Amino acid sequence: MYYIGIDIGGTNLKAGVTDEWGNILGESSVPTGASRPQKEVFQDILLSAERAVYASGLSMKDIKAIGMGSPGKIDYETGTVIYNNNLGWKNFHISDLINDALNIPAVLENDADAAALGEVAAGSARGAKSAIIITLGTGVGVGIVFSGKIYRSSEFGHMVIRSGGRECTCGRKGCFEAYCSATGLIRSVREAGISEPDGTVNGRTVFDFADKGNVKAQKVIDEYTSDLACGLVNLINGLQPEVISLGGGIAEQGERLLSPLREKVRAEMYKGLSEPRIVNCTLGYKAGLIGAAMSAKQ
Amino acid sequence: MYYIGIDIGGTNLKAGVTDEWGNILGESSVPTGASRPQKEVFQDILLSAERAVYASGLSMKDIKAIGMGSPGKIDYETGTVIYNNNLGWKNFHISDLINDALNIPAVLENDADAAALGEVAAGSARGAKSAIIITLGTGVGVGIVFSGKIYRSSEFGHMVIRSGGRECTCGRKGCFEAYCSATGLIRSVREAGISEPDGTVNGRTVFDFADKGNVKAQKVIDEYTSDLACGLVNLINGLQPEVISLGGGIAEQGERLLSPLREKVRAEMYKGLSEPRIVNCTLGYKAGLIGAAMSAKQ
Repeated sequence: MYYIGIDIGGTNLKAGVTDEWGNILGESSVPTGASRPQKEVFQDILLSAERAVYASGLSMKDIKAIGMGSPGKIDYETGTVIYNNNLGWKNFHISDLINDALNIPAVLENDADAAALGEVAAGSARGAKSAIIITLGTGVGVGIVFSGKIYRSSEFGHMVIRSGGRECTCGRKGCFEAYCSATGLIRSVREAGISEPDGTVNGRTVFDFADKGNVKAQKVIDEYTSDLACGLVNLINGLQPEVISLGGGIAEQGERLLSPLREKVRAEMYKGLSEPRIVNCTLGYKAGLIGAAMSAKQ
Repeated sequence: MYYIGIDIGGTNLKAGVTDEWGNILGESSVPTGASRPQKEVFQDILLSAERAVYASGLSMKDIKAIGMGSPGKIDYETGTVIYNNNLGWKNFHISDLINDALNIPAVLENDADAAALGEVAAGSARGAKSAIIITLGTGVGVGIVFSGKIYRSSEFGHMVIRSGGRECTCGRKGCFEAYCSATGLIRSVREAGISEPDGTVNGRTVFDFADKGNVKAQKVIDEYTSDLACGLVNLINGLQPEVISLGGGIAEQGERLLSPLREKVRAEMYKGLSEPRIVNCTLGYKAGLIGAAMSAKQ
């Protein structure tokens, strides 16, 4: 059995054909052209699917189902994108249209949830009964997968960890996301008065400054890993995942981030619970493709 | 089909016979005598089960399965109480023993989880696809039931909402439980210098003081409901339950608690999510019996 996974991004439409274990056999990518009418974008979604099938050496009749990951608000029952800000979509019945065009069952998932499912199916959390995938990007994405199923549209990024703290985009104060997103880290770097020689402020090189002994940078990293540990321990105490996988730009710091993080999590978690493995995501952009395909399999 | 539910409490052993919808047909209660050898307690568990069956007008051959709710650390696979502090039990293979004695399949659940399942099966959250049962007692118990299944042993009471805040029994600072348990409220009342005419400090009458215009008491209640709303909104944003049911002593305040709480939750929740019903638990002690019986049904 083979599946198509499609990642509907603001920049590119990516498609991949996978086997039932989530191995990619062929893929393709075309520019989304987000400002175009949705019919044109839809035609290119079909095109990218066809190209991926061609690249895999299979034909469309070998495909059992198609899964799509899309940002925005989704009606899962009907496979409709209710609203997508980047693409200007409203009530776009994309699953039905795909189904009509290709005569293959199509399902729609949230893109972040699909990526989380991908990491569990074929990446960092492969084989885990329960995993939480945390994406440290513009926001803090939290994807929860238990017993192979996505827990849809969790917004644990908007879990207050510092009541009365920093204002968050959601209107609350002190959210996990306000401190632990890349945006939150950059804010902390700026507040600490740390900048590059050219005056820019950067959430990555602050780790380099800290390594070179910059005390301000070390303090920023220390507070950042403490806040991140705080949010993770909240989730561990409540949900007890086997694996926590970190993705997004900040996770590229690898052990410079993971090592202090694991230590703080261990010290703070509820006694008697099993310590989860805390690792980096391994699939990169492919997580979304694979997860979309795996959601079609379900 | 009929089921026996048993609630193994530190004070009483309670047993009930239910039909498959969780209606209690007969029940019984005997003192636990917690300091006795575990064999004696075990004999009284059998006795209470037999009495409940007798009270229901059925006979033991009508019973399909037995569920037990016990505090302490549990091995669910083997139905063993690994450790129970109140009863002094260690590695007590209670499910096997019940099974041997009565020749009826027996399962073991955490007592708080069983009570949550009871509220969903036959109480305040009846018919809900997803519910979170919050017990505001000595601690803050959080029972999560999704699609009729218990999410076992969640410790979301130990979710930090005020980083660096009050010390919690778990070793963290600023836990939900440290502010929102009955113990936490009493601490706030004490810190505000509010006491009864006889000098005692009380987490319930502080609501009466507030009603009579006591400004200090109003401030305590306002902060309490804000902290409680904060914890609930964290869980709502992350898990999106249909119903949140509040139990434990403080929940007896009813609308004095629920009304400001609903208002604060509504103001703070992530936009676009459905607002859960926030209600009181309705089954009292029977929740544990019914939930234990329903866990046996599963």
